[in-house]
Amino acid sequence: MKSESTGESVLPFPNSTRIYIAGSLDPRVRVPMREIALSPTKDFIGRAEANDPVRVYDCSGPWGDPAFQGTVERGLPALRADWIVGRGDVEEYEGRAPGPLDNGRPAFRKPLRGSANHPVTQLWYARQGIITPEMEFIAIRENMRTAQAASNDLDNQHAALSRDSEFTPSVFRRFPQRIPAEITPEFVRDEIAAGRAIIPANINHPELEPMIIGRNFLVKVNANIGNSAVASSIAEEVEKMRWATKWGADTVMDLSTGKNIHATREWILRNSPVPIGTVPIYQALEKVNGRAEDLTWEIFRDTLIEQAEQGVDYFTIHAGVLLRFIPLTASRMTGIVSRGGSIMAKWCLAHHRENFLHTHWDDICDIMAAYDVSFSIGDGLRPGSIADANDAAQFGELEAQGELTRRAWAKGVQVMNEGPGHVPMHMIEENMAKQLEWCHEAPFYTLGPLTTDIAPGHDHITSGIGAALIGWFGCAMLCYVTPKEHLGLPDKQDVKAGVITYKIAAHAADLAKGHPGAQYRDNALSKARFEFRWQDQFALGLDPDTAREFHDETLPQEGAKSAHFCSMCGPHFCSMKISEDVRKYAAEHGLDDQDALKKGMEEKSREFVEKGGELYAKA
Amino acid sequence: MKSESTGESVLPFPNSTRIYIAGSLDPRVRVPMREIALSPTKDFIGRAEANDPVRVYDCSGPWGDPAFQGTVERGLPALRADWIVGRGDVEEYEGRAPGPLDNGRPAFRKPLRGSANHPVTQLWYARQGIITPEMEFIAIRENMRTAQAASNDLDNQHAALSRDSEFTPSVFRRFPQRIPAEITPEFVRDEIAAGRAIIPANINHPELEPMIIGRNFLVKVNANIGNSAVASSIAEEVEKMRWATKWGADTVMDLSTGKNIHATREWILRNSPVPIGTVPIYQALEKVNGRAEDLTWEIFRDTLIEQAEQGVDYFTIHAGVLLRFIPLTASRMTGIVSRGGSIMAKWCLAHHRENFLHTHWDDICDIMAAYDVSFSIGDGLRPGSIADANDAAQFGELEAQGELTRRAWAKGVQVMNEGPGHVPMHMIEENMAKQLEWCHEAPFYTLGPLTTDIAPGHDHITSGIGAALIGWFGCAMLCYVTPKEHLGLPDKQDVKAGVITYKIAAHAADLAKGHPGAQYRDNALSKARFEFRWQDQFALGLDPDTAREFHDETLPQEGAKSAHFCSMCGPHFCSMKISEDVRKYAAEHGLDDQDALKKGMEEKSREFVEKGGELYAKA
Repeated sequence: MKSESTGESVLPFPNSTRIYIAGSLDPRVRVPMREIALSPTKDFIGRAEANDPVRVYDCSGPWGDPAFQGTVERGLPALRADWIVGRGDVEEYEGRAPGPLDNGRPAFRKPLRGSANHPVTQLWYARQGIITPEMEFIAIRENMRTAQAASNDLDNQHAALSRDSEFTPSVFRRFPQRIPAEITPEFVRDEIAAGRAIIPANINHPELEPMIIGRNFLVKVNANIGNSAVASSIAEEVEKMRWATKWGADTVMDLSTGKNIHATREWILRNSPVPIGTVPIYQALEKVNGRAEDLTWEIFRDTLIEQAEQGVDYFTIHAGVLLRFIPLTASRMTGIVSRGGSIMAKWCLAHHRENFLHTHWDDICDIMAAYDVSFSIGDGLRPGSIADANDAAQFGELEAQGELTRRAWAKGVQVMNEGPGHVPMHMIEENMAKQLEWCHEAPFYTLGPLTTDIAPGHDHITSGIGAALIGWFGCAMLCYVTPKEHLGLPDKQDVKAGVITYKIAAHAADLAKGHPGAQYRDNALSKARFEFRWQDQFALGLDPDTAREFHDETLPQEGAKSAHFCSMCGPHFCSMKISEDVRKYAAEHGLDDQDALKKGMEEKSREFVEKGGELYAKA
Repeated sequence: MKSESTGESVLPFPNSTRIYIAGSLDPRVRVPMREIALSPTKDFIGRAEANDPVRVYDCSGPWGDPAFQGTVERGLPALRADWIVGRGDVEEYEGRAPGPLDNGRPAFRKPLRGSANHPVTQLWYARQGIITPEMEFIAIRENMRTAQAASNDLDNQHAALSRDSEFTPSVFRRFPQRIPAEITPEFVRDEIAAGRAIIPANINHPELEPMIIGRNFLVKVNANIGNSAVASSIAEEVEKMRWATKWGADTVMDLSTGKNIHATREWILRNSPVPIGTVPIYQALEKVNGRAEDLTWEIFRDTLIEQAEQGVDYFTIHAGVLLRFIPLTASRMTGIVSRGGSIMAKWCLAHHRENFLHTHWDDICDIMAAYDVSFSIGDGLRPGSIADANDAAQFGELEAQGELTRRAWAKGVQVMNEGPGHVPMHMIEENMAKQLEWCHEAPFYTLGPLTTDIAPGHDHITSGIGAALIGWFGCAMLCYVTPKEHLGLPDKQDVKAGVITYKIAAHAADLAKGHPGAQYRDNALSKARFEFRWQDQFALGLDPDTAREFHDETLPQEGAKSAHFCSMCGPHFCSMKISEDVRKYAAEHGLDDQDALKKGMEEKSREFVEKGGELYAKA
């Protein structure tokens, strides 16, 4: 573990500085954002007008702050330690006795657990009417209105479809969006209390910067990492985690399956500013040497506690894979493709008994409640091919998830539901509608879905299409798919491709949902593009490095970065330049009062049509 | 021009052979397809069962036939020469006198033009009730039922949404799909006659293999190539054309703007098996040294004839950019971003007269009718940013396109309409609905649309999302966007990335539309994936090279290609392997009658719920 905070993943973004926005309810709340400085607009006659900097949501934590001097060995500062202890409902304890299979160094610190007679979950606090610092942190983070305080231009964006538009998808009629113009701490609390959103934040992961998953907030992206029996090391996985958050991963799942699961996770958690999810059955399986039929509740329970003490923020648990659903998969094109789902299927068949995760659900909930680990109820029977989409096995499990959701809520535990998978475009909305109905509007968290099976090597794209669509329809978090899906383990380049693709999908969904302020960055980038402010265009993009590299390939000269032309049309002709002429013309001909102009022209246009096409000529 | 048919673009696909399916109406019709051979399925006890080969639509023309011995210098064989001359309504003539700006070698052959007193367009023939060889060619090409004749499994796919499904997009209620279970030559003819589809096929491009653009057919993809004043050569552009068709481009637009426009186009046409589109105003502008205000009808007319004689199959003509719409763009975020649109805007403003493309529309139609050049009516005022989507300028022009469409149809000319651009997801359907309404169901041909502006360097993805969506809604052809969009000229790697992304979008749309047989390839690939037939999985994908490379990165050993595991889970555990156990279990427990099982299980499942959750146990 020699990697330090000087690697590739902490190289700064261009023209960017780290800023912090302070909370008003709690002075300890300081929300990190990345502020992108822009150059001024120059008009026809050389006058310059300043452009407001643009602040963007930043998932990279202290690693994205150039002032931060930490190392991977020391781990991140325990940002939330005071908040957690200050609530007076947790206790430090010795923790579970390490087993021979823990295969790692001792934990950094002693674990905490709930010590009062109630869950120590954000859900429980919200139900009591309490606004936690986590909630205020999130309200600031989600609120582009606070972020872009300097600008008046935040409302310059397309609204969501109104409820009575003919183009409004059916799902919105039954389950309307509730995104307010301003995200307040009270709104965050109320959405958590209603179960429509979760804040995955284990009390043993104090390094975490709080974030929220719910359909009335920004759409989130998860990146999967993790070593396997075949390849990769702990250092690589920690670096992948930092790399993924640099590009915008909102949560990271550690899906390690090989050796060193415990130690890999410890290193990831101590260095992760974002929530970490796991699939505990993977480690439990290692403890029984890969023999699913040897799994027991006791081994699983021990694994849950082990991981909860380490600070895992959400657990994928495949408790909806019920014995009666399993034979429904026998006639499928691709059977069971979820690893967790097939582990449980194998166990159920071997013992001919009901899934022990289901029979022990209440016990599991009690553990989750004591550490504030959130459920990500797994979709072990998700379709692995277009052919298997929306079938009886899939929907049977989804309905079972709904029942488990209610029981978890009764125990005060936060819940989201996992979803498919492989689904053609026209069958995606039904997934979202059924999930909202059957799972009582708990947040949905889907893998893609992939919209076709015919492009191995490009499944970030087949799935990015489905992800954007389901994000618009109300999916709260999108689990990325990398180009290596179905073929191999993602390396850093694949992780970046996956995260960028899914940031695109999530942002496209935010625009379609009309999330307040979402279009601000698009507008700033488009304005920069139109004004040939190349550096600003690069800096405002999701991936400034690639944008700049591509531009350099054709026009490497530094001068080209401020040139009023580009390689597509060359210096002698440029459509954007001509547009400037149009503006000049409009100004010279008294057509420069834009609002009046737009209105007037629309009228003139109507007149024109009515008069049978006589030419409009103002001058 | 030393490149021969031995370059990278003619390397064969793995496990593939070129086959031809003969026409039954006309024996000269031989439709190329690529047939992918598959290895057998092996069951638990080692029995093998053959898998039918899969035939796929093939755009690569003779370059994709290993038996073809031609070279770029000689050009492709004139496949359609007899068909065209055989209709007895064309004449060879000397052609327009070459001008000093033609800057190329003489044409390969003398041009043809219509010599009877009627248009020589596929539209005209269709209206006369004639089924041309082109139409039969297309019926076979579009018909997966013919292609997969050996297989019984063609109906194993999801249907389109029924008209009364709550999830059916609004656009389908007003403009239903009309895709029949079998694509017949008569159906092709009728769609052409109704104007709902076009066959771009200039009588001077006999090398072309006919294809169709219409929303009741497979969604098509266009790739743009072309040199510019800044970069690239003729040889590069010809190779890009071959490369694009290898990966599946259905048409190619030559957007050259620099020197050698005429010669570049000649080489491309003589070597292109797919329709070639151009924007003639680009070349006309070169003829007036880049000064838009110096453009005249005479220069433009001369350019149209020059290109029609060479064999260009469709022309983008920005006749809808009317003077009265131009000031509407002054208040936009990004003004006018279409090159053709801004050329015409500049001309209109300079002369303060109506767009001469509009005033000479009937003259233009007469030229198009004499060569069967199809219109692609340009969208010169398309939005260049999310902010400008669906505004008055854009929709004003779209309405004008509708009027031009009717007038072209009256002259017997085939028409499609170009569309945006940059549009957030929730505003895409409105574009499609308005285009169908205002342009009388002529085919729509859109650039993306890009669903967000914040990802320069990844705009194949921002736009692939929008392309898939609008393709589902009824867009007939998707103009690709490469990763270099907004930043530089695409190289071969970018062309491939753009085409593959758009083939994904188009196929995702075909699946969503329930195109008969569209899911056959998905099913074959998924089955191969599930059965660990790695080579088959690679070969069935859109990009076998990348799929294999990715697999090799983690497991380069040849043995791994037949191994029943992959790098994600390693050899000791595999979810797909467990699914085999489920099937075995189902078989052993008499649950192997899959249809009965499915039904039975659903009943059992209901019973189970009604009884309050008692465990189902069959054995």
